[in-house]
Amino acid sequence: MISGNLKKEFEALLGEKNVMSDEVTRMNYAYDAAVLDPVMPALVLRPESSEQLGSAIRLCGENGIPVTVRGAGTNLSGGTIPLKNGVVILTNAMNKIIEINEADMYAIVQPGVVTADFAAAVAARGLFYPPDPGSQKVSTLAGNVAENAGGLRGLKYGVTKDYLMGMDFFDAGGNLVKTGSKTVKCVTGYNVGGLMVASEGTLGVFNEITLKLVPPPSASKSMMAVYDSVADATESVAAIIAAKIVPCTLEFMDNFTIRAVEDYAKAGLPTEAQALLLIEVDGHAGQVADDAAKVEEICKQHNASRIQVAKDEAEKNKVWEARRAALSALAKLKPTLVLEDATVPRSKVPEMVRGLDTVAAKYNLSIGTFGHAGDGNLHPTILCDRRNEKEWHKVESAIEDIFDLALKMGGTLSGEHGIGIAKAGFMAREVGERSLTYFHKIKQAVDPKGILNPGKVIGD
Amino acid sequence: MISGNLKKEFEALLGEKNVMSDEVTRMNYAYDAAVLDPVMPALVLRPESSEQLGSAIRLCGENGIPVTVRGAGTNLSGGTIPLKNGVVILTNAMNKIIEINEADMYAIVQPGVVTADFAAAVAARGLFYPPDPGSQKVSTLAGNVAENAGGLRGLKYGVTKDYLMGMDFFDAGGNLVKTGSKTVKCVTGYNVGGLMVASEGTLGVFNEITLKLVPPPSASKSMMAVYDSVADATESVAAIIAAKIVPCTLEFMDNFTIRAVEDYAKAGLPTEAQALLLIEVDGHAGQVADDAAKVEEICKQHNASRIQVAKDEAEKNKVWEARRAALSALAKLKPTLVLEDATVPRSKVPEMVRGLDTVAAKYNLSIGTFGHAGDGNLHPTILCDRRNEKEWHKVESAIEDIFDLALKMGGTLSGEHGIGIAKAGFMAREVGERSLTYFHKIKQAVDPKGILNPGKVIGD
Repeated sequence: MISGNLKKEFEALLGEKNVMSDEVTRMNYAYDAAVLDPVMPALVLRPESSEQLGSAIRLCGENGIPVTVRGAGTNLSGGTIPLKNGVVILTNAMNKIIEINEADMYAIVQPGVVTADFAAAVAARGLFYPPDPGSQKVSTLAGNVAENAGGLRGLKYGVTKDYLMGMDFFDAGGNLVKTGSKTVKCVTGYNVGGLMVASEGTLGVFNEITLKLVPPPSASKSMMAVYDSVADATESVAAIIAAKIVPCTLEFMDNFTIRAVEDYAKAGLPTEAQALLLIEVDGHAGQVADDAAKVEEICKQHNASRIQVAKDEAEKNKVWEARRAALSALAKLKPTLVLEDATVPRSKVPEMVRGLDTVAAKYNLSIGTFGHAGDGNLHPTILCDRRNEKEWHKVESAIEDIFDLALKMGGTLSGEHGIGIAKAGFMAREVGERSLTYFHKIKQAVDPKGILNPGKVIGD
Repeated sequence: MISGNLKKEFEALLGEKNVMSDEVTRMNYAYDAAVLDPVMPALVLRPESSEQLGSAIRLCGENGIPVTVRGAGTNLSGGTIPLKNGVVILTNAMNKIIEINEADMYAIVQPGVVTADFAAAVAARGLFYPPDPGSQKVSTLAGNVAENAGGLRGLKYGVTKDYLMGMDFFDAGGNLVKTGSKTVKCVTGYNVGGLMVASEGTLGVFNEITLKLVPPPSASKSMMAVYDSVADATESVAAIIAAKIVPCTLEFMDNFTIRAVEDYAKAGLPTEAQALLLIEVDGHAGQVADDAAKVEEICKQHNASRIQVAKDEAEKNKVWEARRAALSALAKLKPTLVLEDATVPRSKVPEMVRGLDTVAAKYNLSIGTFGHAGDGNLHPTILCDRRNEKEWHKVESAIEDIFDLALKMGGTLSGEHGIGIAKAGFMAREVGERSLTYFHKIKQAVDPKGILNPGKVIGD
């Protein structure tokens, strides 16, 4: 428990209104988007400045209080589920864009800036911030770095990691550590920014983040390819990559997902289709024309029954927004939605989708699949009811089978949803005990009291 | 000293011929490309397999023997200068390309593969590995990762870090640690690969490296813009970036460098020019045509006296190879060449070049400048004679002034040449003591005996 005296110390640092201990607030921050039991924190803190953030971390460090920093809590692996007797630190009062530098194409932001707001602010200055996680309308940039968020444009533009130029963060003692630079090349000191990526708040608390910006593409073209066969769609994905075309976006949806999304979003998706590909190519107008023609040709060769090119941005957005709504659409259907994230080398997408069918049949579960097929990053989705113990047991076995499938194909446990506490127990299967030991040594060295989001990523 | 018995143990592991202690061999590996005093290692080891490499590290770990792994020793900051009583481990017998996967666009390599050989092997399979450090004809891929090597194409294509998908490496105990994946998205475990980048062999010994490949550009156009004024050339650089054009290469050479290079390489460079820009744009043919036209226009607006477009690949290569020879050309002129690497946000290039003139005048030194202007990564070069103590003292002061200049402009001590031992003492100026402490904690945790290239990057 956090004593009344300690609470008063936090209040002295942050102001009374920014130290919350009422039950409703604590319950609000007891869970995140993962299917895991909530854990009530002892306090919820809302620092309004770097100084307040640093002093709160320092006080937690001095008193050995576990700290879970929370952006929007949109991660899907329990990375923001706090500890009992721990504090949740909200970043939503530290949401300023400090600088957008057009000449040098970088921006400096506070942790709580919302991803889509940032992308819009950058676009208004004629620049482009590509990472677009599904939750971009609410997710925060520090959360994106902590999870190495991906998104629909990962195929061409990479993930959050590829845009992190530098940062400063508070260590477990509340000291500010600086890494990286505003320059595009920098090898000064350990690349600790690279280590912070995907570390889920276990190694430091981000203060200011420097992000790379790029010039926006001058043209783009979006299309939907409709298939009567899942195999034809996934083979099209492999063929597009093999033709050395790099679309900006190359998304897959199976019939289950199409129907759920259409029912939810009314975007005019063909509910009779067995599979869809949503494809966007962008860049110079000449390249867009060439790539789009080649993509159409490949989809036709692979028996696409129809290819519908978006007439304008509005038509494209309608379909893309529907795709972004997939998670919400599916979540409505049953009490529990398990959204997996196992990822394979992209040429293995057809094989992985076949494997998922086998898993579904083996356990008699409905598994819908959608995702970033061009990245080999599929999101098989299991709809179930966690309160049904027998069914839940089957779901857990199916998830293990999916992990094993991905690893057998040279893939990974998580492409972009994080490890959190949901997958921490499975890590050794992929990386081995020696690697886990190496990770633990780093964690122990920089956070000897284990106050920074303990239990996440590497387990206890 | 390494005892005769211990030497015999190394010989049992690696074979007699791969354990060298003769004076000539030890002298060969006592220095690297930095202007620093040589240090003779006690032994030079040349493992031929992963097993041999791992067992050699393990034996060093057990006996507390400092290990300096050496690719080609082309780093410019003393990163491969060994320790007295330490061993040098050569990677040149571990130089196999294990896999080039065209469908999934990655390759797996052993540490000692030469960069240019790798790029050629990849090109033969219709793919592209962009990082092209100046020393690519001899530098090794593991060395490139350890230094986060940049190169001429950094502006558009990024640096080595941007191509590292995964790796395994031996920790200080000789245990194999795995990080990253063959998938384009992976958030499983700490991103230790990101931490290994630029760590100069202080945190692990690389075994196998997985590198990202990309489709090659379908067209390119190269040109040389000639200027009567340095300011006009550097202002052109800033204007090209401001116009949101991203050339593949945007190199700057001042008159001093032009004359040295022309004398050495006879490439037909205009020795009367005050400055040159070497510019390459690449991508889709339509984009290349548009970008090249815009670049020409901008250079003309900034008073380029002449713009010479390369007629063909041969003409381009002649000029580009001359640029790559700049270091060798300059090194011939005086006994000592100090090649600096201070880097600034790219819009500050004009200001930085003016600042360098001021430093040269202040200390009455000749400073030639060339480098990757589009990245803000200039290489001011001081020609001198280290044996002249008075002059050398001035050179040291000038270098400090250059560091301060770069930092004042929001830049960094080193863009791509590494910190090594040459700049380790200056790190705190940029990152502060708190950051250094954080770095040391990581180092101490994973290498408690301090056997992995001690003293490099973070100092002792």
